[in-house]
Amino acid sequence: MGELDLIRWIRSRIPRRRPGVLVDSGDDAAVLRIGGDRVLFKTDSVIDGVHFDSLTARPGEIGHKAVARPLSDLAAMGGVPTFGVVAVMCPRAASEAWLKRVMVGMERTARAFGTALVGGDLKSHPGKLAIAVALLGRVNGRPIRRGGARPGDAIGVTGALGGSILGKHLRFTPRLREAGELRRTLTVHSMIDVSDGLATDLSHVCEESGVGATIDEAGVPIAAAARRLSLRDGESPLHHALSDGEDYELLFTVPDRERSGVKHVLGVIDRERGIRIRRKDGRVVPLRVRGWEHRFGR
Amino acid sequence: MGELDLIRWIRSRIPRRRPGVLVDSGDDAAVLRIGGDRVLFKTDSVIDGVHFDSLTARPGEIGHKAVARPLSDLAAMGGVPTFGVVAVMCPRAASEAWLKRVMVGMERTARAFGTALVGGDLKSHPGKLAIAVALLGRVNGRPIRRGGARPGDAIGVTGALGGSILGKHLRFTPRLREAGELRRTLTVHSMIDVSDGLATDLSHVCEESGVGATIDEAGVPIAAAARRLSLRDGESPLHHALSDGEDYELLFTVPDRERSGVKHVLGVIDRERGIRIRRKDGRVVPLRVRGWEHRFGR
Repeated sequence: MGELDLIRWIRSRIPRRRPGVLVDSGDDAAVLRIGGDRVLFKTDSVIDGVHFDSLTARPGEIGHKAVARPLSDLAAMGGVPTFGVVAVMCPRAASEAWLKRVMVGMERTARAFGTALVGGDLKSHPGKLAIAVALLGRVNGRPIRRGGARPGDAIGVTGALGGSILGKHLRFTPRLREAGELRRTLTVHSMIDVSDGLATDLSHVCEESGVGATIDEAGVPIAAAARRLSLRDGESPLHHALSDGEDYELLFTVPDRERSGVKHVLGVIDRERGIRIRRKDGRVVPLRVRGWEHRFGR
Repeated sequence: MGELDLIRWIRSRIPRRRPGVLVDSGDDAAVLRIGGDRVLFKTDSVIDGVHFDSLTARPGEIGHKAVARPLSDLAAMGGVPTFGVVAVMCPRAASEAWLKRVMVGMERTARAFGTALVGGDLKSHPGKLAIAVALLGRVNGRPIRRGGARPGDAIGVTGALGGSILGKHLRFTPRLREAGELRRTLTVHSMIDVSDGLATDLSHVCEESGVGATIDEAGVPIAAAARRLSLRDGESPLHHALSDGEDYELLFTVPDRERSGVKHVLGVIDRERGIRIRRKDGRVVPLRVRGWEHRFGR
């Protein structure tokens, strides 16, 4: 059983409808009804050796990433962040100066995106640095779900993809401004942030919406980092743009009539399930979605 | 610089008044204004080897403790829990069966206290199990602060103290019911949960309130576990009741005229700063408060 299965398993034990819960876990963030407002609630964690390497990442970048990841989730719901709390599990041997820089990185990024950090928990322990951030947000109007894509929708993305491991994964900008602009100018049917990779995240949207998709190879915006990484490892830049995670761009769908308002249109939503790719020679072939997931033993 | 100093340092960098923030970090939970409601927001974490030992603690107890600790914080604000999210950082080698029991422990305790878990984040990593829980709550009326104690107040506690390391720290009941009853029947001026030890937590109340306290040795309710532990380590049962942490009883103050409504009255709030103890022979001596705190290097 993998991580996602385990989360599904625990979700299956929880009542489907609970008072005040408008959207339960399973989307980028939960949506709650509190005091007449629609409130987003999300937690995420980053761990040394998994999401960053404390020997090479700057402390400010670590703090940034810890806060920017759940900010990106709120953006993907079409929301606006409001408040946050952070739990820092810090190695006993950490220096005060280094830890301060991590904390300043968190505070600076939170503030830059209008988020007031209102609680902190700091624990020293024998292990490595881990940071869990929980954020609240608000939604003006309806939250944008993963499950709203409709056949015929154009698929858009807010920026170029691939090769984020070369540095962007530590320095990316959560697309909150872009999410607000999309809401104002277009009819966004569905949205997700590209954290697991374009193919995988698009498959999440398709599964939740009960649809399929055809990606247009020529339409996939490929990051310069994907080309640089390609020179190193021999995989194609397109492969990196389709498979690499942690770009934190927004992937969204809009009605076909609005496609001219989308800068990077990379495909179309189909009635037929599964994900296909239209090669530059016109051939349409199935795309293998290779999600990676740790599997726990019995 | 220690953990608490570091938290103070980062707080000093944050604006004192922020929109929607009624009570900032520094109390048992933050209090926010959301959609016309007063909302409590709190995060806390537990780590294998620090807050439990995964070789001896039952998995369900670990899950219980992870959720019950922040529930206890909401109780200490006089609040009622509503929603929660959990971030689980799990050792790669963990068995699925064990991890499921940890998660069931979290879900069961959350549900028992009316808390809907609406988001989960599960990450496998090379380190040990760590769980960060963030909770929301509501307050009917004013939140009960640490800083509201007044000279002459009687100091009460909801149960016997000491020796929780022998087992209670994994199985304690967050005193939400008791907090509700205290609110309804008494004028609670201040409240905190006993997580760091009676002497230390009382000193937090006194510092925040600008007062002092005299504990009556004869009034301190001593847990059976404190006596058992005393037989092992030679420290007095009273020492354990005053110094041991993790009892998660509520420590509170009420006006003297209401002292008859308090089951365990263990002292009185004084104008004179510092904490004293009145021995059984009538002598009043200063109490040394020995908080433990990890200090980070430069």
